[in-house]
Amino acid sequence: MKYARELLRDVDGYTPGEQPRDAGVIKLNTNENPYPPSPRVLDAVRGLGAEALRKYPDPVATAFREACAHRYGYPGPEWIIAGNGMDELLALAVRTFVDPGDRVLAMYPTYSLYDVLCRLHGAELATVDLDADFGLTEDFFTTPARLCFFTRPNAPTGRAAPRAEVERFCAGFKGVIVIDEAYVDFAEDNCMDLARRFDNVIVMRTFSKSFSLAGMRIGVAVANPDLVNEFLKTKDSYNMDAVSQAVGLAAVEDYAHMERNVARVRATRARLIGDLRRLGFVVGDSQANFVLARKQGAPSAWELFDALRKRAIYVRYFDMRRLEDAIRITVGTDNECAALVAALETLLDVQA
Amino acid sequence: MKYARELLRDVDGYTPGEQPRDAGVIKLNTNENPYPPSPRVLDAVRGLGAEALRKYPDPVATAFREACAHRYGYPGPEWIIAGNGMDELLALAVRTFVDPGDRVLAMYPTYSLYDVLCRLHGAELATVDLDADFGLTEDFFTTPARLCFFTRPNAPTGRAAPRAEVERFCAGFKGVIVIDEAYVDFAEDNCMDLARRFDNVIVMRTFSKSFSLAGMRIGVAVANPDLVNEFLKTKDSYNMDAVSQAVGLAAVEDYAHMERNVARVRATRARLIGDLRRLGFVVGDSQANFVLARKQGAPSAWELFDALRKRAIYVRYFDMRRLEDAIRITVGTDNECAALVAALETLLDVQA
Repeated sequence: MKYARELLRDVDGYTPGEQPRDAGVIKLNTNENPYPPSPRVLDAVRGLGAEALRKYPDPVATAFREACAHRYGYPGPEWIIAGNGMDELLALAVRTFVDPGDRVLAMYPTYSLYDVLCRLHGAELATVDLDADFGLTEDFFTTPARLCFFTRPNAPTGRAAPRAEVERFCAGFKGVIVIDEAYVDFAEDNCMDLARRFDNVIVMRTFSKSFSLAGMRIGVAVANPDLVNEFLKTKDSYNMDAVSQAVGLAAVEDYAHMERNVARVRATRARLIGDLRRLGFVVGDSQANFVLARKQGAPSAWELFDALRKRAIYVRYFDMRRLEDAIRITVGTDNECAALVAALETLLDVQA
Repeated sequence: MKYARELLRDVDGYTPGEQPRDAGVIKLNTNENPYPPSPRVLDAVRGLGAEALRKYPDPVATAFREACAHRYGYPGPEWIIAGNGMDELLALAVRTFVDPGDRVLAMYPTYSLYDVLCRLHGAELATVDLDADFGLTEDFFTTPARLCFFTRPNAPTGRAAPRAEVERFCAGFKGVIVIDEAYVDFAEDNCMDLARRFDNVIVMRTFSKSFSLAGMRIGVAVANPDLVNEFLKTKDSYNMDAVSQAVGLAAVEDYAHMERNVARVRATRARLIGDLRRLGFVVGDSQANFVLARKQGAPSAWELFDALRKRAIYVRYFDMRRLEDAIRITVGTDNECAALVAALETLLDVQA
């Protein structure tokens, strides 16, 4: 490809999980919420008239950012940047705070998009392996970098580093820290306050998981106004359309609806973890809306993934070092998880 | 700002036109279409259920791209890339085909976003001045660059280079050529076929203007599949949300609605140009949904812009070399344009 950048020659882009459109598939592979978004969200979509579509949207999504500031305990919208999905904000963080050639720090294993974003920018991703239980090691605290993706809860492990470790990291790290809280609404606690306490901390949230809005692409980042100003330079002028702004606002304003859905997912998660352990999987506690289930021996994790797929149950397998023995299962409804467990019982030839 | 990139120190970001929310304002400043989008678009929005919002969208917008390929006379979706507004695609073109330090070519004056995109990427924008009537000069054909933004019709001049000049340029230029056809639905002809004839040509369209969908952020680029593949590496995984995909599809499928709106805008444009010339403005023929009106002497263009604004009529003034004597007026409804002309008559103290 003679017109392409040399930089892109070996980049494949990020590989999203499959999005089968067939009805009847049990879809536990991309961490969608099994419950619908707030009815107020649908009202907001249906209430939009031709005028909202015809005219340019607010370029800086003021009403939505004000609602987020209020919800997350920040003084005003100048602390918030809204994005076309959290993925856009992650990409913007690299382009805004990292020069080509700079080093970016992440744990390993973690969200594989970071590596793609660094390659696209010509930055170097330095990863520090988590320990055998996917906890942080001392090396993570001593590796200098221009920016760090601190994923909490981490994906695809589901484990959240103790808050004390996050604070210790923030106190010592000299670059910009993106605390990726994509899954934090499913966790015991969060680090939203750290953007106020540290001038180099950006806390990011997505509305795709807990708010059941993966189809809409809505993300927010919270950081001190000096950092937010830099994002305003690099983002596309109108990065969030009129529908997304209205939907995001309606979702934040019906926070209780999200919390009820999250409570249901957490209850199902506890049952699913118990079932998987009973079947012989090694499953750590999860603070997210998925669980990572590991197993030794035959059938292999990949064989299970493949056999489930043939039964129209989609989970996720990562062809990555340290995850060869694992499948990642999104916490669906109780019925979906029961169907998964029944299928695994058959495949593993376990007495139900 | 100690965490920011040096590169961003002198970047202000793109300055969009004002988006006043007051009813009663006559808004002729951001090239929105004065007529509503197709009723089928609104049906598509209202027909979306909770499931479409809950689940991830098609990451590559297949149905929408298929409809565009069919409409634009291309073999299939592999010739099309869809974006979160054409602005996203313009930014992606720079990041996909230009290395930092490379030169990008554009005419001058033109869409000021190109300069911002180049600065954000560390690329150099080389501009070649248009002639006194805003036509291309020979220098434009002989300046080498990694990528060229060929804006046709050009903004804010409204003039479209003859097709023969575009073809001659494409035959000679060695880099990637982005033919920015944001306004081409309002023009006499277009260059959509050139993406098939030249392996280095990308033709871009926006749905913001002719399709009356500025609020939605929908753009497409048409190019040979090798170029499209490079875009697929650099775009965000889910860059176009479920609503935008449904809306874009409905809009393309009701092409006749767009064409009717365009015909009305063109008829009003002819009357507006006549009125402005009668008032003493120098106005070139326009192939877009705006006109550039220039005048010498007092009151100055800026004074007119400001006086109109005080009367709640918003037009656009560019504080840029060669545009000091001009205001850019979006073609609104007949009533809106009549109100503008009446206000100008008063301000210029002209007999109606």
